[in-house]
Amino acid sequence: MTESTKYLLPENQIPKYWYNIQADLPKPAPAVLHPGTLQPVGPDDLAPLFPMALIMQEVTTEREVEIPEPVRDVYRLWRPAPLYRAHRLEKALGTPAKIFYKYEGVSPAGSHKPNTAVAQAFYNKEAGVKKLSTETGAGQWGTSLSFAGSLFGLEVLVFQVRVSYDQKPYRRALMETYGARCLPSPSNQTDFGRRVLAERADHPGSLGIAISEAVEVAAKSDDTKYALGSVLNHVLLHQTIIGQESMLQMQMADAWPDVVVGCTGGGSNFAGIAFPFIGDALRGGRKARIVAVEPAACPSLTRGKYAYDFGDTGHMTPLTKMHTLGSTFTPPGFHAGGLRYHGMAPLVSHLKELDLIEATAYHQTECFAAGVLFAKHEGIVPAPEANHAVKGAIEEALRCKREGRSETILFNLCGHGHFDMQAYADYAAGKLTDQKYDESELAMALSGLPSVPQAA
Amino acid sequence: MTESTKYLLPENQIPKYWYNIQADLPKPAPAVLHPGTLQPVGPDDLAPLFPMALIMQEVTTEREVEIPEPVRDVYRLWRPAPLYRAHRLEKALGTPAKIFYKYEGVSPAGSHKPNTAVAQAFYNKEAGVKKLSTETGAGQWGTSLSFAGSLFGLEVLVFQVRVSYDQKPYRRALMETYGARCLPSPSNQTDFGRRVLAERADHPGSLGIAISEAVEVAAKSDDTKYALGSVLNHVLLHQTIIGQESMLQMQMADAWPDVVVGCTGGGSNFAGIAFPFIGDALRGGRKARIVAVEPAACPSLTRGKYAYDFGDTGHMTPLTKMHTLGSTFTPPGFHAGGLRYHGMAPLVSHLKELDLIEATAYHQTECFAAGVLFAKHEGIVPAPEANHAVKGAIEEALRCKREGRSETILFNLCGHGHFDMQAYADYAAGKLTDQKYDESELAMALSGLPSVPQAA
Repeated sequence: MTESTKYLLPENQIPKYWYNIQADLPKPAPAVLHPGTLQPVGPDDLAPLFPMALIMQEVTTEREVEIPEPVRDVYRLWRPAPLYRAHRLEKALGTPAKIFYKYEGVSPAGSHKPNTAVAQAFYNKEAGVKKLSTETGAGQWGTSLSFAGSLFGLEVLVFQVRVSYDQKPYRRALMETYGARCLPSPSNQTDFGRRVLAERADHPGSLGIAISEAVEVAAKSDDTKYALGSVLNHVLLHQTIIGQESMLQMQMADAWPDVVVGCTGGGSNFAGIAFPFIGDALRGGRKARIVAVEPAACPSLTRGKYAYDFGDTGHMTPLTKMHTLGSTFTPPGFHAGGLRYHGMAPLVSHLKELDLIEATAYHQTECFAAGVLFAKHEGIVPAPEANHAVKGAIEEALRCKREGRSETILFNLCGHGHFDMQAYADYAAGKLTDQKYDESELAMALSGLPSVPQAA
Repeated sequence: MTESTKYLLPENQIPKYWYNIQADLPKPAPAVLHPGTLQPVGPDDLAPLFPMALIMQEVTTEREVEIPEPVRDVYRLWRPAPLYRAHRLEKALGTPAKIFYKYEGVSPAGSHKPNTAVAQAFYNKEAGVKKLSTETGAGQWGTSLSFAGSLFGLEVLVFQVRVSYDQKPYRRALMETYGARCLPSPSNQTDFGRRVLAERADHPGSLGIAISEAVEVAAKSDDTKYALGSVLNHVLLHQTIIGQESMLQMQMADAWPDVVVGCTGGGSNFAGIAFPFIGDALRGGRKARIVAVEPAACPSLTRGKYAYDFGDTGHMTPLTKMHTLGSTFTPPGFHAGGLRYHGMAPLVSHLKELDLIEATAYHQTECFAAGVLFAKHEGIVPAPEANHAVKGAIEEALRCKREGRSETILFNLCGHGHFDMQAYADYAAGKLTDQKYDESELAMALSGLPSVPQAA
């Protein structure tokens, strides 16, 4: 075994540009609409929520967007992230496939989320913003923005879904260690939160509700902006650093992926690893299959409708065309909290419509089985979200074994599971089940989609 | 800020040899004694507990001990570990000092412990051993041996101090994910455990008791050996990879430490970073001050007696000459579980007697304050043990500020705090106190030291 286990890049090879897939799309993605007028939103409509630099990144069609030096300087704390060859996992599977994984768990917050949190904190600081409000479920995103806010001297207010706030105090402790303030959502700090609490005082909360609260705080305050950890174009843009580094590292390994696999919740880590490869192929480079893996209990890409919908429960966001289960859909309480979102990033959805990506869905127990197998052979215990990508990659490797093909598989190991060990304990104790969503609830949520003329 | 943030080495620069400080000592360390005969123990006395390769490493005076290729191959999963320049911490402190830190938290288990766990698992596997027994407190060591056992196909049985077993289920979940079996100690699986339980059915356990149980299991079984995570010469030997890599990385940074700082419990991470620098100075190289930082509530180096003592409560181990608080001493329940040991590694103790190292002690709240400051500026949340090294390094940096000296400080950040967030939550809530040991209990423990003729 003298072949390399991991491929490291020096600091000066941190990419200087984020890659914008909007420059290479065969057909532009549908416009974002104002929910009142149903007309495309302009930069001014978004100005109460985001600094202008991020709004411009949301709509630009420039292929390369320069990464500001202060952002690259923070990236140096953990980037470039390593690319691994999973020698031991390959051997355990007995597959002729070569499996590579990009490991984003080396960031201080433990996932890919700081790639955009740091950029968002920087642009907000530049714009004179004092405070950021955001939502978080299990806590990966809230932790990352808290970390970024700490480095740039911004106050951070995190609305954490109440059930996670109560059940997972350690993520909250981490956010507070970085100096952030963390409130359980629904809270009595916003009109929307109070409205929800008036209907049900012990409401467990949801991501959609927490988004509404965080948006409300930003919309009503002069010195506060809102930050979102996935879904939006600029968030996906910032994550492309993952795929760009991976391309350099695959070249170091003298290999190139036949298949690229990522898990999808809002779509940001998947876009991060996949978009640079898709763009390269669109410009004439070698084409890889691109596989999105989502949870069977919240299957927006495989079971959702491609339609205009709201991003939140309080209907404060613009309308975006995306694969959605309906903004009132409440997924079962499975452990991959980062994948429990009713919608999918508009750009990822658009690529699915263009047949540039595939999608598949797995249940949580088979994903945990994959994660435990991975940990036993590769050492790293993946986050429950990342287990979906591990499962997807293992399935591809087993297909290669059946077909006798030595394909090259690349997947994104987007985070570690150090704050998710209760899920592993439950899995080991046989307590995890494959929760299914309620078909009639899904039908109802889909029937409640906003009515938008087809032309839009 | 274009100066490097971190210094990475390629995989092929993982050292090929461990460094053995016994080759360079101006005076050999005192012999290990059999508690019955008070004569030096021979290899055969230790054979029931350890494979012969490790026993030979315990006593060798060769300067370089070759690292077997299968061990280096596992090291590749995370080594070489990065060396960081703490630019942001320096700025926050306003110090002219340069602060560097070696980060061992990148291992799958989250600390430096796998450096020796992997080596121990390898040598045991080579010797035909089927099963390893060990003890763990908070769980860093048990996790690391479980990880190593998983890679080499060895069963691992971990006796975890009962109070930690009950309070910290996530470390146990991690050990079980790697396939290990974890029992609360005292257990009813050993004679010694049953004896302790007979006296007190709800005994909370201690490291000393857990060691006795693990040793008993190994001593009574043909296919089981015992593994210890610190204190012994071969354990410290395996950790020297930390300091050796650091030397190469300091050269990359065109710098050399004036002060090297590490936290001390059993002494292994401290020895790992310090011994190569001490040895280099003993052979005529540049001399650095070497500072051991221990918890004020368990201060073996600063308050213990340098004397022969047992390593465990059940008095099943040989006698080693070391700084000890007495094998019956029970430290208060502070959070840095890895530093709650009554003794100090014989080699570290010997260096202290030779005035080749300094020692200092801090209370836990000031160490947590240092850790939180570090996290806010450098991102990584240190383990409570590592916070002692952070505190020591910050104190040196502040001294440099007072004295207007731009010295170079290097410390070992031996692990992350992802499994210790309850401690951070308690600290943030003002619930942490600076527990003091009982002076009369210390006096009693010291008065109970075994009687060994001075000549020994």
